[in-house]
Amino acid sequence: MANSRLERMRENMSACGIDDFYCRDISNVQWLTEFEDVFDDEPAHLAFVTPKKAFVHTDSRYADACDRASRHTPWIIDACGGAHAAWVAKKFAAFHAAAGTPEGENVCAMGIEDSIELREFRELERAFSEAKWKPRFAETDGFVKKMRAVKDERELSAMRAAQAITDAAFEHIVEFMSEGMTELEVKRELEETMRRLGAEGLAFDSIVASGPNGAAPHSIAGERRLQAGDMVVMDFGARKGGYCSDMTRTVCVGEATPLAREVFAAVREANEAVEAMIRPGRTGAAMHHLAEDVLAHNGFAGKMGHGLGHGVGIDIHELPVLSPRNETSLEVGNVVTVEPGVYLPGEIGCRLEDFGVVTEDGFEVFTKSTHELVII
Amino acid sequence: MANSRLERMRENMSACGIDDFYCRDISNVQWLTEFEDVFDDEPAHLAFVTPKKAFVHTDSRYADACDRASRHTPWIIDACGGAHAAWVAKKFAAFHAAAGTPEGENVCAMGIEDSIELREFRELERAFSEAKWKPRFAETDGFVKKMRAVKDERELSAMRAAQAITDAAFEHIVEFMSEGMTELEVKRELEETMRRLGAEGLAFDSIVASGPNGAAPHSIAGERRLQAGDMVVMDFGARKGGYCSDMTRTVCVGEATPLAREVFAAVREANEAVEAMIRPGRTGAAMHHLAEDVLAHNGFAGKMGHGLGHGVGIDIHELPVLSPRNETSLEVGNVVTVEPGVYLPGEIGCRLEDFGVVTEDGFEVFTKSTHELVII
Repeated sequence: MANSRLERMRENMSACGIDDFYCRDISNVQWLTEFEDVFDDEPAHLAFVTPKKAFVHTDSRYADACDRASRHTPWIIDACGGAHAAWVAKKFAAFHAAAGTPEGENVCAMGIEDSIELREFRELERAFSEAKWKPRFAETDGFVKKMRAVKDERELSAMRAAQAITDAAFEHIVEFMSEGMTELEVKRELEETMRRLGAEGLAFDSIVASGPNGAAPHSIAGERRLQAGDMVVMDFGARKGGYCSDMTRTVCVGEATPLAREVFAAVREANEAVEAMIRPGRTGAAMHHLAEDVLAHNGFAGKMGHGLGHGVGIDIHELPVLSPRNETSLEVGNVVTVEPGVYLPGEIGCRLEDFGVVTEDGFEVFTKSTHELVII
Repeated sequence: MANSRLERMRENMSACGIDDFYCRDISNVQWLTEFEDVFDDEPAHLAFVTPKKAFVHTDSRYADACDRASRHTPWIIDACGGAHAAWVAKKFAAFHAAAGTPEGENVCAMGIEDSIELREFRELERAFSEAKWKPRFAETDGFVKKMRAVKDERELSAMRAAQAITDAAFEHIVEFMSEGMTELEVKRELEETMRRLGAEGLAFDSIVASGPNGAAPHSIAGERRLQAGDMVVMDFGARKGGYCSDMTRTVCVGEATPLAREVFAAVREANEAVEAMIRPGRTGAAMHHLAEDVLAHNGFAGKMGHGLGHGVGIDIHELPVLSPRNETSLEVGNVVTVEPGVYLPGEIGCRLEDFGVVTEDGFEVFTKSTHELVII
């Protein structure tokens, strides 16, 4: 069976002058192999791609699952365990011995991810230090992650399904929440609801931040009780079919203060302005600046303090980012969050986050929950 | 207020000829600072320890929480954001300019963790490439992790509390489980029970592996239904007070086959033999070999395939390990799992895991659940 991701991988390797690729990022391994129900969080696996072959080096714990998943695929499983670096050095030597490659340094370029640990890079150096044939290591930044930034239809379906669960959980939580509950109580119910609705897990640890806690964008839910007049920031997501969702809504308890209404309106305007402007060819930086401009125009210049958004997929943070640093153009198939926020330390925080996919002529928002201010 | 961890850190640095330490592992940062309710999973923070000062470099999202947590501690918070490497290069230059250090290379040794990403190491190299004062980078392997391997009384209390939740969840799940349920249904109930009992979160994604699935030590729970005669491996843990618990029990559905009884008895004997032998001065390797010997004596030589155990703490996998590779002696305060297993591919799997602390004269087991074979 042809593996189109593997074919694209080899095309990209060839275009970059990379002969073999040593892939260790677990989400990259997941994406490249397309194995289902095999990999957990443990970074125990290596995908090693050569011009002709593709291997998964793993250990005995994963042997059966890898064997099953790799049937009818080009992937060759080697579950002998041991250090990946030593394994790859042995494979490399065997190949070049058989091919009759003249001995020497830089006999080919081996792509590695610059996200590997320094320790593993040193292991690679050591594994090849005495070898007859040595590769040049090409340190790549996001080589596979850039490929993952453009999603296919199956990936989009998984994320729509994950978001449907997330939207339904929001609908439930605004009925459930009330003044006097703690942030932790709300968080627990929110997460339990996503699981009950079929989430395989959470996309990340949910944020429920009330009143002044909302002014810290990464507040950790605690024993603070919801009070009348609070804004409550809830940032949460589900995992379904191996893919993440990500949404934020900010609600008010009992009543919305004039400041809360003002902040909410500014954030909503920034969110909607960006969502109306996203399309292929526009940059992540331009989208970020647009949000900043709308917030500034409403009197909240410099009150966001974080990037406008990020890619979502197997990982909760993927490429591309919507931030001042991203001057590359958005492409059809990019899945990104749009999450402007305003944070007034000691007072209030508000964020409104949707996510969706860049289409031929715009942006399909996966998030169906209302943009209206919800009072609970 | 004196910070004894920070003092010990400086003593160890001094003993290793390290002047400054660049600490990026989030669990190491958590342990060193002892800040509560500040850090989430994001690797956004740097702890930078010098002979006189100790800094946390973070970004605006964590500014308030860090400021609050650092009151009455020696930690200085700089929430200016930006790259850690550039920040540290600037601090370094300012310090040596003020101190009148002669310009040059290797003006001091800066400890770094070999668990940092290769990318970040390159950033550090670049950040100092044009500097007037350059440090020598001392690449350390587990410098802070080795300190974390000996737990204090507060840490032990947190883990006892986490295990109490885990034991109670096991008591509940054996009442709840029955023939015909799917692995996923059991997993969901197990995890929800730990949360309901007060877990802040899970120590890791729980394993519920029935029948032949149990033969893969890292099986992912799925739609397989429990059948009469199955062994069901359940490996799970809670998080409480920032610390993990970890236990495994294997139960039988309906009846235990003769093979199941034989496997269970061997695994139990290995577990209990080791727990009776653990004490300061014995090595992780010796404990591993003892378990292998007991299994072999019962006819299951070579059927474990993984290390006998590992340290537990803030992370689910810490030092020391009980494996053939660990020839160092166990110390009072080490918290380790003891988890022998037998895996017969295509047939059956069984593991029995407790965890506890090495004491002056033995091993205090935190896990209170029975070692008897439970039939559900």
